Amino acid sequence: MAELNGNLLVAQSGGPTSVINASVAGVITEAGHHECIEEIYGGLNGILGILNEELVDLGDEKRSAIEGLRYTPAAALGTCRYKIDFKKKPEKAAKDMDRLFEVFQAHNIRYFFYAGGNDSQDTAHKIHLEAVKRGYDMRVMGVPKTIDNDLPHTDHCPGYGSVVKYNCATVTEVGFDVGSMATDDGSCCIIEVMGRAAGWIAAGTILAKQGDPARPPHIILLPEIPFNEDAFIARVQETIAAHKYCIVVCGEGVKNAAGEEIGADKTRLDAFGHAVLAGASEKLKEIVQGRLNLKTRTVLLGYAQRAAAHFASQTDSDEAFACGTAAVKAAVNGKSGLMPKIVRLSSKPYKWTIELEDLANIANVEHFIPRDWISEDGFLPNEKFVEYAAPLIVGEVKVPTKDGLPQYVVLTRSPVDKTLPPRA
Amino acid sequence: MAELNGNLLVAQSGGPTSVINASVAGVITEAGHHECIEEIYGGLNGILGILNEELVDLGDEKRSAIEGLRYTPAAALGTCRYKIDFKKKPEKAAKDMDRLFEVFQAHNIRYFFYAGGNDSQDTAHKIHLEAVKRGYDMRVMGVPKTIDNDLPHTDHCPGYGSVVKYNCATVTEVGFDVGSMATDDGSCCIIEVMGRAAGWIAAGTILAKQGDPARPPHIILLPEIPFNEDAFIARVQETIAAHKYCIVVCGEGVKNAAGEEIGADKTRLDAFGHAVLAGASEKLKEIVQGRLNLKTRTVLLGYAQRAAAHFASQTDSDEAFACGTAAVKAAVNGKSGLMPKIVRLSSKPYKWTIELEDLANIANVEHFIPRDWISEDGFLPNEKFVEYAAPLIVGEVKVPTKDGLPQYVVLTRSPVDKTLPPRA
Repeated sequence: MAELNGNLLVAQSGGPTSVINASVAGVITEAGHHECIEEIYGGLNGILGILNEELVDLGDEKRSAIEGLRYTPAAALGTCRYKIDFKKKPEKAAKDMDRLFEVFQAHNIRYFFYAGGNDSQDTAHKIHLEAVKRGYDMRVMGVPKTIDNDLPHTDHCPGYGSVVKYNCATVTEVGFDVGSMATDDGSCCIIEVMGRAAGWIAAGTILAKQGDPARPPHIILLPEIPFNEDAFIARVQETIAAHKYCIVVCGEGVKNAAGEEIGADKTRLDAFGHAVLAGASEKLKEIVQGRLNLKTRTVLLGYAQRAAAHFASQTDSDEAFACGTAAVKAAVNGKSGLMPKIVRLSSKPYKWTIELEDLANIANVEHFIPRDWISEDGFLPNEKFVEYAAPLIVGEVKVPTKDGLPQYVVLTRSPVDKTLPPRA
Repeated sequence: MAELNGNLLVAQSGGPTSVINASVAGVITEAGHHECIEEIYGGLNGILGILNEELVDLGDEKRSAIEGLRYTPAAALGTCRYKIDFKKKPEKAAKDMDRLFEVFQAHNIRYFFYAGGNDSQDTAHKIHLEAVKRGYDMRVMGVPKTIDNDLPHTDHCPGYGSVVKYNCATVTEVGFDVGSMATDDGSCCIIEVMGRAAGWIAAGTILAKQGDPARPPHIILLPEIPFNEDAFIARVQETIAAHKYCIVVCGEGVKNAAGEEIGADKTRLDAFGHAVLAGASEKLKEIVQGRLNLKTRTVLLGYAQRAAAHFASQTDSDEAFACGTAAVKAAVNGKSGLMPKIVRLSSKPYKWTIELEDLANIANVEHFIPRDWISEDGFLPNEKFVEYAAPLIVGEVKVPTKDGLPQYVVLTRSPVDKTLPPRA
């Protein structure tokens, strides 16, 4: 394999996580060890910024800033939800590709790393194929990231362990709170977490039980299991009878038997005539209060859960960093069109390694929880799931604080001079 | 002052906080230093459990468990929202008082400590007056607790600093997340925090700015300031123009000019015919999306914020503990009918001491943010507020973890033998 000299470009895409910056730190740190990599650039807001030739010089960042990316949530380079869609918009896609390769060429980009989830891996794959087609010598690697944990082939996705860890702490704490207020009347709290299609995030909160069946969460509703209202209400009643309170975790995409999201009740209109989406937790609250006359509160963690670096998983951060370094090593070794994946060697003790997977096998495939990892009644993940998820939340990322608050890194983002005319 | 020998009873009341257990730890620890205090009992679920003679022997708890209360959220003895209301239900109140004093007498309770907010201090006050009236020699002390920070006379309330600290971390992290996704379209996130009448909790998130006007939160809506929709929308637009994203924090009790909560829109009915309370954040989301067509998401922290001991304030925990010890010291010194209050000696450096306040001056009085601590336009607290709140969030409570999760203490709660017939 001939050595390829040139510049590196790394960018981030899709919804941020607590550790996607750790992957970028891995890319930058490893790149610094290879002389064939000349400049290290970042693309702002993913493909969108690259199309606009918005590159920043990561070589200008302080070493401490790059180190700080290992505990800084969100996307330090910015992100986007931009698709290059040859099927629906072939002309625009072709034009975008032309522009991307103009930018790559203008800045002698020979190493391109794209951190993201399913859509982003698809984009990376298309860019790899295009480079081959055009005979443009560039090594393209996807870097896995998604709190949803729905990428195939990798044992799990960087970003997942941290969201589960924070959500478990929240379930535990809310459980202590609601439990301590529970008198004979009982009370219920419904905690809505992310996960539209796959229930990995909701399922992960089973770890908050720490092996004790009496502890919360008492019911977990997954998008994969059709919601049965009567069975759910019966289970809430049983839980109240046993513990005087009930903590329910629901994935935002919980669906009824017809496959419709229960939170997407479109019969209500707001003052502007738009359908109001109650959200799964509000809908469940209505059902519990309406049928059981039970005091019910909701918690909607929303973006807070995927950005909660102050209680992120050290294991997750380490793996995210390792995916970044592995991508660079592979690229320097001549590989392209691949994504590092995490391979589990054993669960107890937890051992893992990194291998590479063809991007063609990753793009646009969603990975769901195996049915036999969930109890027969569908209300709780079982021991198989616990064994899988438990190692992923171990260890606490150390975040420096000042005046009582986390001190996250903001990159200086020194712009790389533009050499092209603006995008048409 | 003659020494008073006998047993001690401590109980918790109202909504839990991250540090109300630290106050109980203070009571128990200090009580152990005084020979006049014979047994140390806890009342389960506040007054409600005491009426049912549900006492536990805190002398049976391990020393490590008592120490662990300093980092364990919620109410380890359970709590209640039970009122002794002589005005509305004089017969029931009189009967309750008779029963309480039967229980006190049966267990030779000579020291009674009640940790809670406004209502609970009122209860403690009534019990003190009743003891005096009955000539029953017992020292009654309130112990301040409330995340709402609305008790008068004390500089601030134990519980407040911790909820502010966690909420600030959340605002910072959500701000990083939303900011990193913001492209030219802009996006908005509305974070709803507790605070029905007083806006102390919402206002506290100003600290997340860490002195930088560009950082979130960009707008804080307080229940004290009537909501002006047009001015709010204008401010959101300005913020989007400047930063491409906008983080709004709202107190749950934000009200319109007519004094009605904006989240209590009762025109919508659920499937059971009940009015649906959208909540302030959902209502604001409708307004922002409807008028600006701006992508808007919500976060509803709910109970999570007041139970988030994994990121609690060490200053807050220390002060809560100190209030517990001060209450015991005062009682042993012959005082009764008082509550320890925190007196600020200076803000920079932060110095405080504890003095005592008559419960008659505390009960049922609410303390609001001074108007001159809020900007003229009402959208952000000013430097006076920052100087006040900043010291309260300093320091991180150290919570032990195992398998990646916080390990909170659950008391063994050895029951004290009942000697009375059941409550009539």
